[in-house]
Amino acid sequence: MPNAIDGGLAHGGRLQQAARAYGIAVSEWLDLSTGIAPWPFALPEIPLSAWARLPEADDGLQAAACAYYSVEQLLPVAGSQAAIQMLPRLRPRSRVGVLSPCYAEHAHAWRQAGHEVVEIAELQVAAQLDSLDVLVVVNPNNPTGRLCSREQLLSWHAKLAQHGGWLLVDEAFIDITPEHSLAAESDRAGLIVLRSFGKFFGLAGARLGCVLAAEPLLQTLAQQLGPWTINGPTRVIAAHCFAEQTAQVQQRQRALQASQRLAALLSEHGLKPTGGCGLFQWWQGERAAAVHAFFARRGILLRLFTEHSSLRFGLPADDAQFQRLAQALKELVNE
Amino acid sequence: MPNAIDGGLAHGGRLQQAARAYGIAVSEWLDLSTGIAPWPFALPEIPLSAWARLPEADDGLQAAACAYYSVEQLLPVAGSQAAIQMLPRLRPRSRVGVLSPCYAEHAHAWRQAGHEVVEIAELQVAAQLDSLDVLVVVNPNNPTGRLCSREQLLSWHAKLAQHGGWLLVDEAFIDITPEHSLAAESDRAGLIVLRSFGKFFGLAGARLGCVLAAEPLLQTLAQQLGPWTINGPTRVIAAHCFAEQTAQVQQRQRALQASQRLAALLSEHGLKPTGGCGLFQWWQGERAAAVHAFFARRGILLRLFTEHSSLRFGLPADDAQFQRLAQALKELVNE
Repeated sequence: MPNAIDGGLAHGGRLQQAARAYGIAVSEWLDLSTGIAPWPFALPEIPLSAWARLPEADDGLQAAACAYYSVEQLLPVAGSQAAIQMLPRLRPRSRVGVLSPCYAEHAHAWRQAGHEVVEIAELQVAAQLDSLDVLVVVNPNNPTGRLCSREQLLSWHAKLAQHGGWLLVDEAFIDITPEHSLAAESDRAGLIVLRSFGKFFGLAGARLGCVLAAEPLLQTLAQQLGPWTINGPTRVIAAHCFAEQTAQVQQRQRALQASQRLAALLSEHGLKPTGGCGLFQWWQGERAAAVHAFFARRGILLRLFTEHSSLRFGLPADDAQFQRLAQALKELVNE
Repeated sequence: MPNAIDGGLAHGGRLQQAARAYGIAVSEWLDLSTGIAPWPFALPEIPLSAWARLPEADDGLQAAACAYYSVEQLLPVAGSQAAIQMLPRLRPRSRVGVLSPCYAEHAHAWRQAGHEVVEIAELQVAAQLDSLDVLVVVNPNNPTGRLCSREQLLSWHAKLAQHGGWLLVDEAFIDITPEHSLAAESDRAGLIVLRSFGKFFGLAGARLGCVLAAEPLLQTLAQQLGPWTINGPTRVIAAHCFAEQTAQVQQRQRALQASQRLAALLSEHGLKPTGGCGLFQWWQGERAAAVHAFFARRGILLRLFTEHSSLRFGLPADDAQFQRLAQALKELVNE
């Protein structure tokens, strides 16, 4: 059988790989390796025509997304990853600061497109800003959970925009706390906000994200990505979910509660989170690789970051999953 | 309401646009404006996890696709359009011949990426080949239906490959007559074959295509496109459809019969096809724009190519659709 060719970097959610590595069937795993809400929104009925026909750009998805994000314009893309891949191609060779550590695909994509990438800490930004053309900030950050204030980000943007620079803010995990979003300011030239559909709505297989930015940039991006980038049924589902305000409120509450409960549980068992947000907790410690393997042998998949010896814990979906995690934590303590 | 931002070039299948332009509700149209088989394959049950989780590259789609195309390696992409957009970025500035007229996105994508594009007729290829780095051939061609022989294509490829050139063959419409495909030769360096899932399987909303080429190029392409490009449920559906051999035989027969019946019907009414293939018929004539409008006023959408004054007719799905088309053709004759 041929090997599957895939993208390159390591990520959470690779259950097939874990199943082979640990000899545990896919169905037996508790997968906490991603930051995706474990409560998928209820799916509307999907008309067969959404599968059969070419998707049309004027089908209502864009309007529903604009209403959800409270913006006048945006571009839906096939996952915010599609924008991460393409945005670096829209600039001449630039000096790009990436607030690190963060989601590794950003630095990777800018490097791959030939830019000079410097990974910098938050405290270094002020000193570096004048020498940067682009600053990339994941907010809240993945995996540290660190949140930059809107004021801080807007002040960085103002400086960058003065000389044609960009502030790229990846808000993949912000839907739980939308009051921190820069969506409302995303029509400013040089400010680009990425939003992810799959994480908050619990539908990561749909492959949808939205780019919020000034219209000329959205037009350029649309032309580079070409027509029909988004799956037809995904367009139907997303237009529906974006309008489900009651379910959105419930999802926010449920995620916040689960995230707090997860933080408390980890703390009780000697893994007090170093950081976190509404969709995951993050723990840094020397034992990270060993703890990862300990859980994996028990069929619980966490996300290990070897480069900064840390673990990300996604949210358990219900009491049963919390109990399974608690049991493994107890065994870890007693080991 | 904000305007939807979309890709740029005109295409078939824009029913929302037609509905507004002609004041006829979307549900009232007979859409013959695309070359998509009007019999979508039966969908398997889609597990909720396909929507909820990130897609995994090693889920069996690739193996099923390899078996269907009888190749050892390929890269599934989110519609062959995704490959059309990306392939031009993998070469330094090149001289690119596009066998024309054909599907307009090819020349557009190569131009957009900064290459020199020359649109050439089949008879000019021999004389031009030495000066080309890349030759793009849609086979069978869209919209003319013209088919190049495998021998001809392989001889062009051999010449191009001698100096590191590429032959890019877009086989979007070849599944009805797979004996003409170059799939079996696609492991040759410099030969790239694009296949479309949506047209033959009648599931264009799924957004899936496959790139068949030597593995180093597939690896490069995969890295440029990044992870999770394909919708999760699409992966489930396609893996299923690729294995449905009986339904595939039936689809081929049904399409061939409908295509022949369509050609006969058009001929009987003064629109003898100039060309065609198993998924559409093509008619060129001075009256093309007028005939297009005549049908549109009757709620029948055809694909008009103003630049070479021609019309493409997709396949009617059943007797009722054939009768509706026949009635409009009668009215056209009597006008």
